[in-house]
Amino acid sequence: MQLGMIGLGRMGGNIVRRLLGAGHTAVVFDQNPKAVAALVEAGATGADSLEDLVAKLDLPRAAWVMLPAGEITEATVRSLGTLMQADDVIIDGGNSFFKDDLRRAAALRDKGIHYVDVGTSGGVWGLERGYCMMIGGDASAVGRLDPIFATLAPGLGDVPRTPGREGRDPRAEQGYIHAGPSGAGHFVKMVHNGIEYGLMQAYAEGFDILKHAGSKDLPEGQRFDLDIGDIAEVWRRGSVVSSWLLDLTAQALAGDEQLDAFSGFVADSGEGRWTLNAAIEESVPANVLSAALYARFRSREHASFADKLLSAMRKGFGGHVEPT
Amino acid sequence: MQLGMIGLGRMGGNIVRRLLGAGHTAVVFDQNPKAVAALVEAGATGADSLEDLVAKLDLPRAAWVMLPAGEITEATVRSLGTLMQADDVIIDGGNSFFKDDLRRAAALRDKGIHYVDVGTSGGVWGLERGYCMMIGGDASAVGRLDPIFATLAPGLGDVPRTPGREGRDPRAEQGYIHAGPSGAGHFVKMVHNGIEYGLMQAYAEGFDILKHAGSKDLPEGQRFDLDIGDIAEVWRRGSVVSSWLLDLTAQALAGDEQLDAFSGFVADSGEGRWTLNAAIEESVPANVLSAALYARFRSREHASFADKLLSAMRKGFGGHVEPT
Amino acid sequence: MQLGMIGLGRMGGNIVRRLLGAGHTAVVFDQNPKAVAALVEAGATGADSLEDLVAKLDLPRAAWVMLPAGEITEATVRSLGTLMQADDVIIDGGNSFFKDDLRRAAALRDKGIHYVDVGTSGGVWGLERGYCMMIGGDASAVGRLDPIFATLAPGLGDVPRTPGREGRDPRAEQGYIHAGPSGAGHFVKMVHNGIEYGLMQAYAEGFDILKHAGSKDLPEGQRFDLDIGDIAEVWRRGSVVSSWLLDLTAQALAGDEQLDAFSGFVADSGEGRWTLNAAIEESVPANVLSAALYARFRSREHASFADKLLSAMRKGFGGHVEPT
Amino acid sequence: MQLGMIGLGRMGGNIVRRLLGAGHTAVVFDQNPKAVAALVEAGATGADSLEDLVAKLDLPRAAWVMLPAGEITEATVRSLGTLMQADDVIIDGGNSFFKDDLRRAAALRDKGIHYVDVGTSGGVWGLERGYCMMIGGDASAVGRLDPIFATLAPGLGDVPRTPGREGRDPRAEQGYIHAGPSGAGHFVKMVHNGIEYGLMQAYAEGFDILKHAGSKDLPEGQRFDLDIGDIAEVWRRGSVVSSWLLDLTAQALAGDEQLDAFSGFVADSGEGRWTLNAAIEESVPANVLSAALYARFRSREHASFADKLLSAMRKGFGGHVEPT
Repeated sequence: MQLGMIGLGRMGGNIVRRLLGAGHTAVVFDQNPKAVAALVEAGATGADSLEDLVAKLDLPRAAWVMLPAGEITEATVRSLGTLMQADDVIIDGGNSFFKDDLRRAAALRDKGIHYVDVGTSGGVWGLERGYCMMIGGDASAVGRLDPIFATLAPGLGDVPRTPGREGRDPRAEQGYIHAGPSGAGHFVKMVHNGIEYGLMQAYAEGFDILKHAGSKDLPEGQRFDLDIGDIAEVWRRGSVVSSWLLDLTAQALAGDEQLDAFSGFVADSGEGRWTLNAAIEESVPANVLSAALYARFRSREHASFADKLLSAMRKGFGGHVEPT
Repeated sequence: MQLGMIGLGRMGGNIVRRLLGAGHTAVVFDQNPKAVAALVEAGATGADSLEDLVAKLDLPRAAWVMLPAGEITEATVRSLGTLMQADDVIIDGGNSFFKDDLRRAAALRDKGIHYVDVGTSGGVWGLERGYCMMIGGDASAVGRLDPIFATLAPGLGDVPRTPGREGRDPRAEQGYIHAGPSGAGHFVKMVHNGIEYGLMQAYAEGFDILKHAGSKDLPEGQRFDLDIGDIAEVWRRGSVVSSWLLDLTAQALAGDEQLDAFSGFVADSGEGRWTLNAAIEESVPANVLSAALYARFRSREHASFADKLLSAMRKGFGGHVEPT
Repeated sequence: MQLGMIGLGRMGGNIVRRLLGAGHTAVVFDQNPKAVAALVEAGATGADSLEDLVAKLDLPRAAWVMLPAGEITEATVRSLGTLMQADDVIIDGGNSFFKDDLRRAAALRDKGIHYVDVGTSGGVWGLERGYCMMIGGDASAVGRLDPIFATLAPGLGDVPRTPGREGRDPRAEQGYIHAGPSGAGHFVKMVHNGIEYGLMQAYAEGFDILKHAGSKDLPEGQRFDLDIGDIAEVWRRGSVVSSWLLDLTAQALAGDEQLDAFSGFVADSGEGRWTLNAAIEESVPANVLSAALYARFRSREHASFADKLLSAMRKGFGGHVEPT
Repeated sequence: MQLGMIGLGRMGGNIVRRLLGAGHTAVVFDQNPKAVAALVEAGATGADSLEDLVAKLDLPRAAWVMLPAGEITEATVRSLGTLMQADDVIIDGGNSFFKDDLRRAAALRDKGIHYVDVGTSGGVWGLERGYCMMIGGDASAVGRLDPIFATLAPGLGDVPRTPGREGRDPRAEQGYIHAGPSGAGHFVKMVHNGIEYGLMQAYAEGFDILKHAGSKDLPEGQRFDLDIGDIAEVWRRGSVVSSWLLDLTAQALAGDEQLDAFSGFVADSGEGRWTLNAAIEESVPANVLSAALYARFRSREHASFADKLLSAMRKGFGGHVEPT
């Protein structure tokens, strides 16, 4: 089927390529004409403005917005809302905040336009592995787009099927779900990323402990000089902690066991924060997910004010002298 | 080659079966004669005492102790130390504390007996998937036992090879490593389990947030009634959080989405605790691994004293009345 | 000077009493006529409606709203906004969310009405100890109300003066500050409560460790049967951890060392949550304040879903059998 | 009564001065002859060796060791054990690990020598405020030393008495307790310090949030430029979070609100670590106390390996590009 794509960065561009490869058609637009040209070469129809893109789409239209979350997505969805008409579908495939989805869906519903939010995991690997998608929106719109989702999803692949799922929604094991009404897709993706932070931090702490097992601060005879690259590798087969993140860890450590290429400054996108806000709103304890986010905050500070205050208090009560 | 096995529970028994299946031979002993009989039927040589097992092993002997960590392992290793002789190898395949390994290895070294500690992950799945093994001990003993380890390990399987590992120790990608001197195997396995706790808790918190997304405490219009079984399933393919633990989660939720079969009382074995002790000893921050362990502690309490004290303080300053 | 008070619960009523005792006058209103009558007896002028209260106040008016945060405060402030006029002051002394203050202040500013938010600590002890107040609003309104604040504040008392504060705002050591523009008062009070949660949890965990020092799970000869009531008491004098919360702890434990009167179910008001939201918005790590809030969430659950999921995973990999 | 003091640093020296001031006598020794001379001038009897000190003490002797915890304390106690005789008392006033106390007490008990461990809080302020003491040992030895403890303790002072303590051990409100047998004193002091870390971190995080309330990362119109020195001061009177640590915070911020004098590198003594080990041994959740210790560990690292590993994983899955 036909899809309009706005935003031809790594994610948007690869999505279009995967669709074209499966026989779908695409009308594409990006602020950068070179990005448009590249996909036209791959078989897409180019557009030189939002208006042009909308004009070139068949009714009922389906336009996928794949832009960095935030103001530009917001503005694009708003513009599409004025350009499109009843029964069209606007898809936000970025990482929008689910409460923004709720608001947008309500506004577009007044015009009869469907709003579908798609949380997408897989990053730069999606072109090859397929995209894991968590979809929110009304069932008719989501159903109409099914050929698109089925193509983008990873499919069963060589991952063993889960016993006991007979009779359940078959889309889940193909790698996409209709999670619920508008907002539900991004909500599930948000928690996915919250979990991702927690998993990453669990590995990070564990490898940090392994790395320091040879520390001179430990008593002699109780130190180990461990090959953490080999450890990451060995856990990939048969161990309880095997995972895709561990695969990536093993790759990184195979190349540079000291990780000297990295500064230790760790960014975070909004989903980890929103996940905690959700936990707090729901009264769900989330110590691990919080600690994972805070570790990233902390990685970006030198000499935090909190730490200085600790020292100031210690000085106050004479803590520099033992015993306290 | 020949191996003696002491302890024929699920782990020990399956290890012997896997070895026999690959053409190795085994002399086996267990307090429970039925366990011995079952393996004799599978092709092993039975022993009716430690002494008998030692007597039936060829020189230089290799005896694997596969017992619950703690006193019984300690006592068995000590007995073997008196029964065996220079150049023999005692293998502890259980979950011993690495400082116990250091002590035992030193004591046995005086007699010329090798002590090899093997941290083993894979649980009940090992017979089928193979055992991921982290091995500590001197190189000569570990090298001599290589045919055993190579058989027990999962092998390459269908897990893609990690790019960039050319020229590195090939055992790691077969699923076993020689981590270092005695104690190193259990040290690495200890941290493995610490990480395992952290990963599990990250999923647990995330699914808890998903589960509560429909809570009546949330504002109307901001609630989602999510199918967490489908969510676990969809993340298995193409998502960043795919892992073997997620596979298990999807299986559990496919069978019973409410998990009503579980009381919520979560046990812990010693390795999570020892991992934290190691982190503390090394001055490595481990917020996530700690929170994961503490969540288990907390799961086993009702009405904790800490919580009662909070209420008592709140009562003291009138916290039952708003504003505080 | 004259103050109108809306809301004569424990906090509002005691504030009026403290003001009357110092020679101020008050016009008071509450939904409950008995509450009004009680304060009329104490010397206040009663009002039987918001309108009546506003009518009885001299120009420029000052009306203090002391209601549970949330909808009723919101509605009352909105009504006062329609009844009052330029140069009047509306004071919200409850625990409102600071972003609500920002919104209200902006709306009232259009009419020339001042909005002053007062975060108040001290609870039921305020009548006796005085109220610690953190005040937001424009300087003219806050300045005009100074006689009220000076009376309500604890004053220097017998707390030793902080060296080095010469030349700084003298109000702080009297127990009240003008923290900044509207919203700043409740922001500071919010963080105050976040800290309060952290402090309480630190004591709670410490006393829990002391309480379990005699646990049968510990090796014999390493157990202590401690008198935690005496411990709380001894720390009140000369120790680094002395505090008012410790005083309350000592009182509670003097009465009932087992705290059997408490169920262990610990409520939380909104400020702890808002504090975390602020930390997340500011990218400030807040592990301790988060853990303190989550402990309260956890105290209100039995058999959490997160814990059940851990057990389900453990069952999946055979974790009920050792070694894992 | 007479006391021998070994170790005349700030703590030991001040203890002797406080005793002399109250009419007690002291025999003192330190590796540094100047320290001895200073106290001889203050009225003490000097000794030039451990042997000399023991020789100058009346029977039954009481010798207080006030040295940095660790090897030197261990060696000194051992030497005293050979020099002293049945019914003498050795007091360890430092911050020893309680399991070391258990071992030492057992060894000395064989010779009839009493071992008393005294956890002492109050730091450099003790000379003036008195020392809060938590004492372990057998009742006869602790009772015999009561005049010493009563002098060193702060006494009732102007801290209000706790209602409901009538009939309970009067020593607690004087500022010292007999916590239990040998080891109990240091155990209680250990947890005291664990709590201290938690309290400090709660304040540190809260003030960090206040400090960042004006961050440019926040939306305009939602920022506050707060005077955190005034905030610390105002909370000292009438608020729920008033404490001695807050007093110290107010002092530090009065002098230098930016705390530029501090590097942000925060040391820790052993008690925080031991407290966590105890919590883990007792299966008591201690998220706050752990987070407080880990924050100190983290303060001493730049570009931690854990953080680098997070970045390496992020790079692996393309996390540098949004959406993830």
